[in-house]
Amino acid sequence: MFNNRIKIKELLTWQPQQQDVFIMGWVRTFRNNQFIALNDGSTNNNIQVVLELGKYEDVVLKRITTSAALKVKGVVIESLGKGQKLEIKATEIEILGDSDPEKYPLQPKKHSLEFLREIAHLRFRTNTFGAVFRIRHSLAFSVHQFFNDKGFIHLHTPIITTSDAEGAGETFRVSTLPFDNPPKNEDGSIDFSSDFFGRSTNLTVSGQLEAELAATAFGEIYTFGPTFRAENSNTARHLAEFWMIEPEMAFYDLEDNANLAEDFIQYLIKKVIENNAEDLEFLRLRLLEEEKSKPQTERSELDLMQKLQFVIENKFERITYTEAIEILLQSSHYKK
Amino acid sequence: MFNNRIKIKELLTWQPQQQDVFIMGWVRTFRNNQFIALNDGSTNNNIQVVLELGKYEDVVLKRITTSAALKVKGVVIESLGKGQKLEIKATEIEILGDSDPEKYPLQPKKHSLEFLREIAHLRFRTNTFGAVFRIRHSLAFSVHQFFNDKGFIHLHTPIITTSDAEGAGETFRVSTLPFDNPPKNEDGSIDFSSDFFGRSTNLTVSGQLEAELAATAFGEIYTFGPTFRAENSNTARHLAEFWMIEPEMAFYDLEDNANLAEDFIQYLIKKVIENNAEDLEFLRLRLLEEEKSKPQTERSELDLMQKLQFVIENKFERITYTEAIEILLQSSHYKK
Repeated sequence: MFNNRIKIKELLTWQPQQQDVFIMGWVRTFRNNQFIALNDGSTNNNIQVVLELGKYEDVVLKRITTSAALKVKGVVIESLGKGQKLEIKATEIEILGDSDPEKYPLQPKKHSLEFLREIAHLRFRTNTFGAVFRIRHSLAFSVHQFFNDKGFIHLHTPIITTSDAEGAGETFRVSTLPFDNPPKNEDGSIDFSSDFFGRSTNLTVSGQLEAELAATAFGEIYTFGPTFRAENSNTARHLAEFWMIEPEMAFYDLEDNANLAEDFIQYLIKKVIENNAEDLEFLRLRLLEEEKSKPQTERSELDLMQKLQFVIENKFERITYTEAIEILLQSSHYKK
Repeated sequence: MFNNRIKIKELLTWQPQQQDVFIMGWVRTFRNNQFIALNDGSTNNNIQVVLELGKYEDVVLKRITTSAALKVKGVVIESLGKGQKLEIKATEIEILGDSDPEKYPLQPKKHSLEFLREIAHLRFRTNTFGAVFRIRHSLAFSVHQFFNDKGFIHLHTPIITTSDAEGAGETFRVSTLPFDNPPKNEDGSIDFSSDFFGRSTNLTVSGQLEAELAATAFGEIYTFGPTFRAENSNTARHLAEFWMIEPEMAFYDLEDNANLAEDFIQYLIKKVIENNAEDLEFLRLRLLEEEKSKPQTERSELDLMQKLQFVIENKFERITYTEAIEILLQSSHYKK
């Protein structure tokens, strides 16, 4: 049984008191045949594992390469290095998986997002994607928690459908008919009666139809599932495949709807600040660095944390459509 | 703002002390021009709303039909009827939505599941589907809670894919090419280079491929999303579309895996007993009724709650494959 290992995220909160520990993870760096920075994915932060000089044979030390998987037993001691409170004095090292340094493409440096896209199978292992996916998880969980706490019912609406819920653009066809020789009607059109569902089907663009039916039974429901648009736009507007959150409520007026939306956004931001402080701090610094490459006038006045704080510390303005148009007309960005 | 209404589930836990309340819901039954059984979907249980005789005109009373949507203000009083602790003495009734009793197909009686399948858009409003979907919600939320509490990362794996992860049977093709006249290569095969993703794609049969990649970065992850099999089997084996939970863990051995699976099943059952006592009790009674139509020898020894208790109160047996075969060979169901 391996599952009595301590996760590094928890370990880093300990006070060093010579505790015996057992950890597992992947090597981020290995310096001077002595200092291993080990990461197990529970946090971007590594634990430093210190090897006794001369204890291990060269053939073992050579296998401690970036991304090699290790099992480490050791003792928690105070760290003399800066930037860390504690480290592990190793008593036992086992190499569970090798990583060939000639072939492994991730290096302990900042890689461009474009490069990482080419090695999508490995990018989860970078600090940036680590932070993003832990935050994404935290947000997804908080979505469920928010609605569950309010008594909403979570509904899994159909993905394959015959309806085009919103007339919301192009859809992907779903079929099991042979593409190169589909059955045809007398008039030459495709005969979908022998398709899997006996008719023409596509991927859903929205769960709204079924969601509304359920809302008129349960009062308050939500969907949170994948949605599809066959728009080859390559813009931020619609991805081909994205997960959408759709709450549907009976017995709500416009004010209730607006209250729910405001509560929802503020709740999610509060939760992510509470649960992902380290990951947000990493992204804040990364974004600040990117800002530096911009001209002074184009830099954002607020950093990531200030922006998030701003949203949770202020009530949302509610204005009429007419007022919104007035504001837009008076904007310096509006060209007459 | 309507959202200061009290939900019926909460209201039914109150002590009647002449409290002013505001509720909204749908009429289940209306008896003697005086007693409305109102339901708002928060529970299968209705609240009885009592109208003062002679206070409302016939034209209003006639609109209080099964499934009509009502807004009710009133006072919480002790109920003299049996089976309920409290009821609402109405001071104000507003009909928000009418329901034509000649056309509305659900009646306050038990309908067959076959009949309800024909009116799938309304079956959420029955006690059976109400109980099932509240339990389903509760289970889905508990799945997220279980993994979140253990530090697992929730991953949304791709639905449209080019891979057939498990060689797991027939897949649904996803395409935007014109079915009646797709572009072809010189050899007559379909030219997928002009399809949406530039190649032939299908609906995923499993998130396992991406899940394993993430597990070797985060340690412990899970997926919970829709999965598809184009098997026209009409059996319980695989639906065409179903939501699948796939945990993937690094640093687990077989014992860790089995522990996780056992913990998971027991956690979900405990949570559903904790959160859905009323809904389970409804289903227990419904299933008992169905058992009665079976011959004595074929009836289950345990009812629904006893079965659930059995699973959470016992450790799971762990046996080798060889031991399992031995048991099967000795079974009275085994025909030589």
